[in-house]
Amino acid sequence: MVPHLITSLTGPINELEARIIDSMPAIERWFRLEWMEHTPPFYTSVDLRNAGFKLAPVDTNLFPGGFNNLTPEMLPLAVQAAMAAVEKICPEAKNLLLVPEKHTRNPFYLMNVQRLMQIFTQAGLNVRLGSLDAAIKEPTRLALPDGSELLVEPLVRNRGRLGLKDFDPCTILLNNDLSAGIPGVLEDLHQQYLLPPLHAGWAVRRKSLHFQSYEEVAKKFAKLLGMDPWLINPMYTQCGKVNFSEGAGIECVKSNAEALIAKIRRKYKEYGINEKPFVIVKADAGTYGMGIMTVRDPKELDELNRRTRNKMSVIKDGQEVTEVIIQEGVPTYERVNDAVAEPVVYMIDRYVVGGFYRVHADRGIDENLNAPGSSFVPLAFAESNLLPKAGSKPGASAPNRFYMYGVIARLAMLAASYELEATDPEAEIYE
Amino acid sequence: MVPHLITSLTGPINELEARIIDSMPAIERWFRLEWMEHTPPFYTSVDLRNAGFKLAPVDTNLFPGGFNNLTPEMLPLAVQAAMAAVEKICPEAKNLLLVPEKHTRNPFYLMNVQRLMQIFTQAGLNVRLGSLDAAIKEPTRLALPDGSELLVEPLVRNRGRLGLKDFDPCTILLNNDLSAGIPGVLEDLHQQYLLPPLHAGWAVRRKSLHFQSYEEVAKKFAKLLGMDPWLINPMYTQCGKVNFSEGAGIECVKSNAEALIAKIRRKYKEYGINEKPFVIVKADAGTYGMGIMTVRDPKELDELNRRTRNKMSVIKDGQEVTEVIIQEGVPTYERVNDAVAEPVVYMIDRYVVGGFYRVHADRGIDENLNAPGSSFVPLAFAESNLLPKAGSKPGASAPNRFYMYGVIARLAMLAASYELEATDPEAEIYE
Repeated sequence: MVPHLITSLTGPINELEARIIDSMPAIERWFRLEWMEHTPPFYTSVDLRNAGFKLAPVDTNLFPGGFNNLTPEMLPLAVQAAMAAVEKICPEAKNLLLVPEKHTRNPFYLMNVQRLMQIFTQAGLNVRLGSLDAAIKEPTRLALPDGSELLVEPLVRNRGRLGLKDFDPCTILLNNDLSAGIPGVLEDLHQQYLLPPLHAGWAVRRKSLHFQSYEEVAKKFAKLLGMDPWLINPMYTQCGKVNFSEGAGIECVKSNAEALIAKIRRKYKEYGINEKPFVIVKADAGTYGMGIMTVRDPKELDELNRRTRNKMSVIKDGQEVTEVIIQEGVPTYERVNDAVAEPVVYMIDRYVVGGFYRVHADRGIDENLNAPGSSFVPLAFAESNLLPKAGSKPGASAPNRFYMYGVIARLAMLAASYELEATDPEAEIYE
Repeated sequence: MVPHLITSLTGPINELEARIIDSMPAIERWFRLEWMEHTPPFYTSVDLRNAGFKLAPVDTNLFPGGFNNLTPEMLPLAVQAAMAAVEKICPEAKNLLLVPEKHTRNPFYLMNVQRLMQIFTQAGLNVRLGSLDAAIKEPTRLALPDGSELLVEPLVRNRGRLGLKDFDPCTILLNNDLSAGIPGVLEDLHQQYLLPPLHAGWAVRRKSLHFQSYEEVAKKFAKLLGMDPWLINPMYTQCGKVNFSEGAGIECVKSNAEALIAKIRRKYKEYGINEKPFVIVKADAGTYGMGIMTVRDPKELDELNRRTRNKMSVIKDGQEVTEVIIQEGVPTYERVNDAVAEPVVYMIDRYVVGGFYRVHADRGIDENLNAPGSSFVPLAFAESNLLPKAGSKPGASAPNRFYMYGVIARLAMLAASYELEATDPEAEIYE
């Protein structure tokens, strides 16, 4: 299904699209060369915002939880990419242990887990689920909306190896982002492949470092295409010691927001963009769309109400927010049936395998859409993303737009790869 | 589009399908391990025959010429597989030189060339066409049915490298099966990747060696699944000095055909198959569906008419037939709209990327369908081949059937890989 889209793609983004389509072989070669030097994350999803004058990733998830939102038509690509990934990591693998989020009976999330099991089963692995939830003391069946069930089993740790009863996996695939910290049972697993690595979890990861890496990637890519990296790069600053509930450190957020808004205003002026700049303040280690606020005027920060303070204080798994990233707000001008929409691109290994639009009827173009009330419309990525057509009018061809989305999402994935190298505790240092 | 099929899948093949679906992770792992030791051909197509009691490859093409018969939905898989292939062979590649069949203005073949160019362009390469045809002395435009054009250019050989004017490729991809012999211009290209290698062409290749390798692969696979390899392996013998037009060496063909028919009859008896055995006599180095005859009774060989003698004497590019393979005939019990059909599976690198049914309304179930008058019905492979479903009734699920076809086709591809190792003139020998 191709969603009905009303998108105002204007000026710079049409030029960007045309340049990307024209440079396709050069871009693909550039990615090939980057992947010779850097290892892609095992799987990645990237939220994009297309403002018409700018297209940028705003969030890069290394534990994607929406595989159920991909259309069945995208499955073969996902299976093929999973085969390529498995082959590189552990070709002799028989068994894959999948560790999902704990404490969740959210049927959408469980459908994501089911879809992941399907993908890796079809890639040729025996897949079973092991839970980090201490309450799972015996094999437990979780019901799915389609009437089927998932069987979640307690983890069994034997010295250097993690598995289940009578199940010794070669690879452990985390679909749990470790927001609550790194559980002991996952530490020191040197005999098995643990993917993504522990330092990809939110116990270690910081958005600000990701966007620092992304800036580096965006600059390289912009040089390749001879363009201003700002067209694809959201500017950001950060504050390290914030306590919203006590009102501490808010001054830093305010002054950084002021400075960033001034920088955005200059860029808008340079490009003749008639928009009101805004910034997004987000927990630097946050996820699940929690701990996010839109700031249109820094003065708003002086008078935060209790609800906002609470919202910004505690995020997933009850973690307190003390570090925030202040990011250039990129409005989204994409619409699905009049509701504000943003594209989400899914990747396995280095391959784009699908995507969808996150749609929210009650949110504005400058607000976070990853919030209760959002829904998902599959993108016709499977048919289109790999099939751009030179010579189409910029902004008028869905395959060309999806190809562009796939390119920008892969830049964010490459940034995550740089980021994971920088934070790898076992990295060898050559100086 | 899923073709309307009437297939009588009975007895053994349903059991084979059930066994293959149940063993899927073991099968995929087995392939992964085989591909650690052996390099898949760059691209491969395999003709299968499903007799209901037996499913076997009958022809393995290392220069597939029907990419145009794949549905557009299969393209993304082909592009992704091509990316994986390019990445392994020559990741720094910018340019790919594609060498098509010469002397052909067949619009279907030209559409195949166009499709190949599209796949490799979208995998991120600059693709141009270079002709082995000495008559192509300057860039020549060939019209396609859709109104577009292909530009074919004369090859330029500079010492160790082959290219076009102002075009120096990293990889040369042959879509010309070298039936006419190995042209000097392709020899000693040690600085570039020439794929498939010269010894994959029909100047060197022999069907009998392929099926010898296939027998080895089928035995290994049958052991993995605990079954009789005959269920997937067509038996064969060969004759080396035959001249149909002069009537020489036909005695060898006749006695081998008699012996093979007797062997088939014993197998049919063992399985209670109520069919009349037959054999197929084919040029050992032949292709294009030329030089093929069905022999139901060896006595027919005593009284070959002039037309048949001529048909069996000369094949593609005017090559004389002197070696033949006598292969167990596998009837096809697949039907598309009442016409006899056989599945053809397309692969790039180790991945199944699509397939179609070759359909011939005027041919019998025991005849070669690769003949004038055949047409093509795309298989819904892209959606289905990678998505088998455990628990479906054997013979009743299209995805399970297509998965089985993909497995048997990959066995034939693996056999081709063994075969190319055995015939590699540059192979190092460890004894």
